[in-house]
Amino acid sequence: MLKLHHAPNSRSGRIVWLLKELDMPFELNAMAFHPKDLKSDDHRARHPLGRVPVLEDGDVMIYESGAIMEYIMARYGDGGLKPAVDSPDFPAYLQWFHYSEGMVMPPINIIMVNTVLLPPDRRDENALNQAKRLLGKALAPINEALEGKEYLAGTFSAADIQLGHASIMSGRLGMIGDDMPNLAAYVERLQQRPACQEAFAA
Amino acid sequence: MLKLHHAPNSRSGRIVWLLKELDMPFELNAMAFHPKDLKSDDHRARHPLGRVPVLEDGDVMIYESGAIMEYIMARYGDGGLKPAVDSPDFPAYLQWFHYSEGMVMPPINIIMVNTVLLPPDRRDENALNQAKRLLGKALAPINEALEGKEYLAGTFSAADIQLGHASIMSGRLGMIGDDMPNLAAYVERLQQRPACQEAFAA
Repeated sequence: MLKLHHAPNSRSGRIVWLLKELDMPFELNAMAFHPKDLKSDDHRARHPLGRVPVLEDGDVMIYESGAIMEYIMARYGDGGLKPAVDSPDFPAYLQWFHYSEGMVMPPINIIMVNTVLLPPDRRDENALNQAKRLLGKALAPINEALEGKEYLAGTFSAADIQLGHASIMSGRLGMIGDDMPNLAAYVERLQQRPACQEAFAA
Repeated sequence: MLKLHHAPNSRSGRIVWLLKELDMPFELNAMAFHPKDLKSDDHRARHPLGRVPVLEDGDVMIYESGAIMEYIMARYGDGGLKPAVDSPDFPAYLQWFHYSEGMVMPPINIIMVNTVLLPPDRRDENALNQAKRLLGKALAPINEALEGKEYLAGTFSAADIQLGHASIMSGRLGMIGDDMPNLAAYVERLQQRPACQEAFAA
């Protein structure tokens, strides 16, 4: 059985979400989002930097959320969560899937580090403000792309998990303003999904 | 014919590299890495934030380097640059492909911003040093993974383009130290490839 090494409020929620959407059974190693778990020798043997998610599948050990999503869908079936290569939705699917780590997560990481993770005296106000500006800019094209649409690439897809998860995190950071109504409605729509709720509760 | 919107010393070099490895003809729109080109109305119509690469393929317009790599290989054939789904190299291929934007590029971006892109009086020394530490940590697992290996996932693959390009950039930033001999040799090896040389000259 697949074993997911997980911590709450992290990118490993994406994998929980995917597995629940696919109705696939899996074992969850629920760690604390804390160095005592993530930087333990056990976990560093899985990921040298002590990050999550890591997926274990028999002899296979794999990290990076985007890679794990692709791995699961390629080896076990995508359940219709990935458009066919010749589908007109295929380019948008790929683009928004990769946009999550390429554009949205880098400023989110900096905001997390300088609000929650570092003690107040080590936070960098300048870096924090720069990251907030950058995140606002990165979210605007998603809001535009969602004009008149429910999902990023046709019907609900894994791109809505990968970038939807980052969008939900952006909302929790207070970064989805009144000027982004499509994105706000999208985040609401995603959060109606039972698999999304289970992912954020895990 | 495919049309690549490109600027030198940017992620769009990855697409030049891939297309040259695949021996595919394409048209190059070579812009300057400067706001006058990248933030022009013409280019903002292709990418709302004025980034590169953007690939145009008839009616299709797609951005994000990882997405474009996947798009080209899926629609036009991967030329053996992507392991089959049932190959033992498949998980490592996916992991290292995604590791490029997930772990290596975020600190590279911050280093670029605070050394080359911002004027000296607006650079953030603290953010720069934090990014250098983070990049060093992110490169170490690649150095380890290359122990006794020529490439990241079996024979040369698109993961070696996506993460190899980021590794070469790291080397140019002086971030591959004597403690990472496998990574240094790997970067040398990649730079022997004519397609890599053409990509960095474009």
